[in-house]
Amino acid sequence: MEPSASVTSKALGILAAFTAQQPQLTLSEIGRRAGLPLTTTHRLVGELTEWGALERDEAGRYRIGLRLWEVASLAPRGLGLRERALPFLEDLYEVTHENVQLAVRDGYEAVYVERITGRHAVSILSRVGGRLPLHATGVGQVLLAYAPAEFQDEVLALPLQSFTKYTVTDPKRLRSVLAEVRKTGIAVCDRLVDPDSLSVAAPIFAADGASEVVAALSVVVRSEGADRLGLAPAVRAAARGISRTR
Amino acid sequence: MEPSASVTSKALGILAAFTAQQPQLTLSEIGRRAGLPLTTTHRLVGELTEWGALERDEAGRYRIGLRLWEVASLAPRGLGLRERALPFLEDLYEVTHENVQLAVRDGYEAVYVERITGRHAVSILSRVGGRLPLHATGVGQVLLAYAPAEFQDEVLALPLQSFTKYTVTDPKRLRSVLAEVRKTGIAVCDRLVDPDSLSVAAPIFAADGASEVVAALSVVVRSEGADRLGLAPAVRAAARGISRTR
Repeated sequence: MEPSASVTSKALGILAAFTAQQPQLTLSEIGRRAGLPLTTTHRLVGELTEWGALERDEAGRYRIGLRLWEVASLAPRGLGLRERALPFLEDLYEVTHENVQLAVRDGYEAVYVERITGRHAVSILSRVGGRLPLHATGVGQVLLAYAPAEFQDEVLALPLQSFTKYTVTDPKRLRSVLAEVRKTGIAVCDRLVDPDSLSVAAPIFAADGASEVVAALSVVVRSEGADRLGLAPAVRAAARGISRTR
Repeated sequence: MEPSASVTSKALGILAAFTAQQPQLTLSEIGRRAGLPLTTTHRLVGELTEWGALERDEAGRYRIGLRLWEVASLAPRGLGLRERALPFLEDLYEVTHENVQLAVRDGYEAVYVERITGRHAVSILSRVGGRLPLHATGVGQVLLAYAPAEFQDEVLALPLQSFTKYTVTDPKRLRSVLAEVRKTGIAVCDRLVDPDSLSVAAPIFAADGASEVVAALSVVVRSEGADRLGLAPAVRAAARGISRTR
C-alpha cells in the first residue's frame, strides 16, 4: 500500500486481510497482509476492535466481529435479497434435498449470498460470501446471459479459466450457450466447475417488474443420474415466485 | 461526535448510520446521523464507496455494499456458526415448518444470526442481524441461563423491558426461571415478547466439548395449540447435533 493511502483505506485494507482460508489472524499477520507498519496496524486494529468490527479470540488472534456482521447484514444485495428469496429457496430445498443457491453479479464474478444444503447433498465449491467466475456455473451463466451486451463482450474477451474438461472457455461456443440460456430461461451446467455436480439455474428479475435481472438461483445435484428435465420447472417456478415478491 | 474523533471511528460511524429501518440514506442523512460535517462525510463516503463498503443506488442514495457483506460473512460468530448449524436447522424446519432461529449473546442482547421460516409460519419480531433483550425470548433466556453468574447479576440489576403482560421482569422470578432452564436444558417462552408466539429454545455448546455455551437455537410457533412437549425433544436433538459438529 502506498504511504499516502488514507486512514480509511488502511482500515478497510485491514478488514480485507481476513479471508475464508484465514479467518483468524495475529497482529503481525494483519500488518503483513495489509502492507502496513506494525505501529499503524496496532493503532487501527485497536480502534476496529473497540468498535466491534474485529474481535479477539482466546488465543489473542483477531477475527471479523459480530458488530460488522450486523451492519453488513443490511446490504440490500446480501441479506435483503436473501430474506425476500428464502421461503422459495426453502420450498425448493424440500423438493430436492440438494444444494439450493442464490447469487448476484459483482464485477466479473458471481457472489453467493445464500446456500441451503442438506447433510446428504453433493459437496460443492461455492460458499456463502464466496465467488466463482461467471462462465463456469449455472448462476453465473444466467447472470451473464441477462447482462448488457457490452458487459458480455468484456467477459468473453477475458482469459476464461478451465475447471474441468467440460468447462466452456471458447468465446464463440460460450456465446451460443448464453443465447440458449436467454431463449429457455434456464442454464444447465453439467460438471463445468465440479467434476461431480450439475447445476440448474434461473434468473430473478427486479421486484418492480422491470426486465433487469438482479440475481440468479440454482439447484446443484449430483451429475450422475440427475433428472435435468424434472428440476427445471421447480427452479423456474421458485425464480418466478421471488421475482414477483417485493 | 467529538471533533477529536479519529478518522477510523468517523468511517465506522458512517457505517453505523445505516439501520434496518433506514437501510438507504442520502449523503446529508448520513452526515446528520454520524454527526459529521458535510465535507468530511462527502470525502469518507467517497472512499467507502470506492472500496465497496457502500454502494450507490439509482436514486443516488447510499446503502451498505456487497464487498462489506462479503468480508463480514467471515465473522465466526455470524456465518461461520451458521454454516455449522444449518443442516440441523433445516431438519428442524422440515419437522415443524415454523420459525427456526439461531442466536448468540452480545452485550445484554441476543443477536439473531439465522432464521429459517416458511411462508405460513407465525410472524415474529426478530430478523437476521437484529437484536432482542435476553430476558424476554427463548434463545435469550438460554444464553442468560448459561452465562457466568456475575453477568446474570448485571442483567438482573437492569430495568427489564415489558413486552406483553407475560414478560417476566421481576429479578427474583426471572432467577428461578433461569434455574429451571439450566435444570431442564430447555427454555419455553410463551407470549413473553410477541402476543401470539411461543418459543422453545436449547443451548449450543462450544465445539471443543467445553461447557461454554456459544449460541442458542429455538423454534417459534403459534402459542395457541402449541405442542410444547412435542417440540422440546426435536429442539434438544438439533442443539446437541450442532454442539457435536466442528
